[in-house]
Amino acid sequence: MTAQAPWTEETSASEVDRIVAAAVEAARHLAQSTPAERVGWLDAAADALEKVSEELVALAAKETHLPEQPRLRGEMVRTVFQLRLFAQALTDGEFLRAAVDHAEPAWPMGPRPDIRRMTVPIGPVLVFTASNFPLTLSVAGHDTAAALAAGCPAVIKAHPGHPELSARTFEVLAQALTEAGAPEGIVGIVYGVESGVTALRHPGIAAAAFTGSEAGGRALFDIANARPRPIPFYGELGSVNPVVVTEAAIAARGADIATGYVGSFTLGAGQFCTKPGLLLLPKGHGLEEQLRAAVASTGAQQLLNDRIAAGFRAGLSRLVEHSSVTELTHPADSASSERYTPEANSAAAFGPTLLSVSADAFLADTESLDVECFGPVSLIVEYDGPQQLRAVLDKLEPGLTATLHAEESDADQVRALLPTLTALSGRLIWNGWPTGITLSWAQQHGGPYPATTTPQFTSMGTAAIDRFLRPVAWQGFPEALLPEPLQDANPWGVPRRVDGQR
Amino acid sequence: MTAQAPWTEETSASEVDRIVAAAVEAARHLAQSTPAERVGWLDAAADALEKVSEELVALAAKETHLPEQPRLRGEMVRTVFQLRLFAQALTDGEFLRAAVDHAEPAWPMGPRPDIRRMTVPIGPVLVFTASNFPLTLSVAGHDTAAALAAGCPAVIKAHPGHPELSARTFEVLAQALTEAGAPEGIVGIVYGVESGVTALRHPGIAAAAFTGSEAGGRALFDIANARPRPIPFYGELGSVNPVVVTEAAIAARGADIATGYVGSFTLGAGQFCTKPGLLLLPKGHGLEEQLRAAVASTGAQQLLNDRIAAGFRAGLSRLVEHSSVTELTHPADSASSERYTPEANSAAAFGPTLLSVSADAFLADTESLDVECFGPVSLIVEYDGPQQLRAVLDKLEPGLTATLHAEESDADQVRALLPTLTALSGRLIWNGWPTGITLSWAQQHGGPYPATTTPQFTSMGTAAIDRFLRPVAWQGFPEALLPEPLQDANPWGVPRRVDGQR
Repeated sequence: MTAQAPWTEETSASEVDRIVAAAVEAARHLAQSTPAERVGWLDAAADALEKVSEELVALAAKETHLPEQPRLRGEMVRTVFQLRLFAQALTDGEFLRAAVDHAEPAWPMGPRPDIRRMTVPIGPVLVFTASNFPLTLSVAGHDTAAALAAGCPAVIKAHPGHPELSARTFEVLAQALTEAGAPEGIVGIVYGVESGVTALRHPGIAAAAFTGSEAGGRALFDIANARPRPIPFYGELGSVNPVVVTEAAIAARGADIATGYVGSFTLGAGQFCTKPGLLLLPKGHGLEEQLRAAVASTGAQQLLNDRIAAGFRAGLSRLVEHSSVTELTHPADSASSERYTPEANSAAAFGPTLLSVSADAFLADTESLDVECFGPVSLIVEYDGPQQLRAVLDKLEPGLTATLHAEESDADQVRALLPTLTALSGRLIWNGWPTGITLSWAQQHGGPYPATTTPQFTSMGTAAIDRFLRPVAWQGFPEALLPEPLQDANPWGVPRRVDGQR
Repeated sequence: MTAQAPWTEETSASEVDRIVAAAVEAARHLAQSTPAERVGWLDAAADALEKVSEELVALAAKETHLPEQPRLRGEMVRTVFQLRLFAQALTDGEFLRAAVDHAEPAWPMGPRPDIRRMTVPIGPVLVFTASNFPLTLSVAGHDTAAALAAGCPAVIKAHPGHPELSARTFEVLAQALTEAGAPEGIVGIVYGVESGVTALRHPGIAAAAFTGSEAGGRALFDIANARPRPIPFYGELGSVNPVVVTEAAIAARGADIATGYVGSFTLGAGQFCTKPGLLLLPKGHGLEEQLRAAVASTGAQQLLNDRIAAGFRAGLSRLVEHSSVTELTHPADSASSERYTPEANSAAAFGPTLLSVSADAFLADTESLDVECFGPVSLIVEYDGPQQLRAVLDKLEPGLTATLHAEESDADQVRALLPTLTALSGRLIWNGWPTGITLSWAQQHGGPYPATTTPQFTSMGTAAIDRFLRPVAWQGFPEALLPEPLQDANPWGVPRRVDGQR
């Protein structure tokens, strides 16, 4: 590091302009790059990050209060893995969505010209990094990987929660990319709230991705849409993540459910966008003791930073002080007991808090109770029979996930609930927990607003690349002027739909 | 028709509420419908519309001033065809984008649970119909067909330019759908500007589609984004559609290019979103006489309605009176000669107007000259060599299409231009004209703003269905509770990606 660390000052407007201009120039080169070249860049980035993983994990631990083991080491593995997974998706070629329709004089609506379509990179992508996953959703994280895979430069807005880690990660990433032959300007980084807004308004930016709070994300979404030329804004904003438990599931494995639930809502100190914020239990579930025991065995944890700690205290206070809410566990149940005292200092560790409310009371005030509170707290809603469960589900906010704990003997009841749960979310989980999102071809991380601003897309898994691509059609072009994937010879061997057939 | 024609009054807010509520209820049933059922509904709608096609064509002619032959009859064929094309897309099953990833304990980022994804209907779609295609982009038009195919109810905002046609088309469509077994409320119709806005703000609406002017579309886009829960707004707003002609092309077939160009920019009285609004010709092209002759042989045509005629007069005046612009043709060149006199009455027929400007002058004022003017006018920009052509292209607004007239001997020059043209548009045309959009698997009708608000999608062709779908993942579900396309047995035989393999 030089004398003046790069993150200690806000990036100036003129510097933002220079960085975006470099990204625009890089985009011209990237538009002509082959998927095979980009595979090389992604693999080089993965290798370089892997080499400094100990250093990055240590920096992350210093800046975020997250434990190195297993959390940050696991995150590091995931960060490297996802770069390689996108490289695999590129090799596969499906992301091009190539289609070739040859000229057809007998086409029923009238003669059809030769027309061929594939996707092209959308252009420079502004990546707002997340606080809660300093490696996997940050500078060299999932959005950056998806943008680079798509052939888009990434202008990265560093998160103030881990600036030194951001600067070091960027240094390693940028060097690995350019050494592997990627054009200068393929990645850039800006620091400071205002620099992110300046970049978002810049005409050179073609799309933006964000993971964070509903308030912050909505403000940026509004800015993206208010541009003279609006751009796609992929915001992953927030989610309550309800979990429904049936009577049969409690009878079969109530203790496991209690332990699993507490493990899930306290994972990473409850700072997951998929934290189960609501547990819908049948009245008289009898799990109180097991829940209390699970909470008692969970240590207190520091939150990511002061701002998040302050937000948690405020949200927790509102829930705890709600007249219909009772506390199932007490601060004293867990080791270090800071919780919602306004004067608590930033180094405070928070023990988990488990609250409870009747379905009647919940239904009477969903506005206060069906809310995301980022940190180690969750609310149990006790429902009285399937009809009341249905009534609760019908009133829930949409979100990223909905989870069911049920037995196969519940099949009829579950079938009746599934349409409502599907309408509510982007991922349904059976007898598992929403935290811990695998990355694969079938992953879907998204859902109706406020889960995301674009429910048609996923922000995780290989399909996340689709956010940074747009289709273009070539009509009547000679073979020699068509992009390779659309030439009759199909020299890259990409999967295609030809004259409607696969 | 009953005594009180339905379109003579604005739909009241309470009636809009009733219609959207019925769509929300229908959406619940549609979410459980099979693609095979929806194929039956679409085919039934196509058959019913085909039966009354003479009546609909006559109503369209009466309300829009468009000629029955070949225009409206062709549009009718297209309207029926596109319903059947979407039925074919449903049969194919690709729209489900089904992916199955089985549990994989050795997954490099950590054990992978069983996870499976497919698309589901997004919910009730609000369709703003277009004025310029009273059949194919209106009540039973392309957006409605795409929404129904996706399994979404359509709440249709009738266009005031053809209200009687809208009402009759709706009557036939609604009856055909319900007789074929579709749920009540699957289609609804509202009349009046305010009713469209009321519906767009209604919490029951999940997405909206619009084809029309940039000003109107942007206003609705802003409303959709300002909702407490924003929804995807698919707006197809406007496009200038540049055409580049090389010297070699003029030498080889200058006369054909002149005739083809005049035919394309005057088609449907220039009221196409793909009308070529700019023709980039090399200086000294020598096509003046051929262009004048082609214009002279083109009859005057009435515009769709008074509002569009007034808009055209205003836009045309601004272009004609621009100090750098010269008129290549004169009103007297064509039969009936109304053109831009402000007092012209609504029955006025407009002869085509062809204007010309140097590239220098164009570059000096693109804000006034690189604009869409809806109606029979187009602007020739004379460029001086490849470098100046490049400079012009670099300053153009993005749009729906970009066209090249060149010879294969121009390959090197063309290769140098293609990246810029690709960045500018959603469809590239070689030695053809942008008007007349075929419908097929490879079609792409979209592009960077202001062509559309969502460049990641197409509003025409089979891929238009993607706008009304969102992906959902099922994690760890037993076979019996999975939707058919995700069951291991794949009972519907849909195309799938299984464990990353196709």
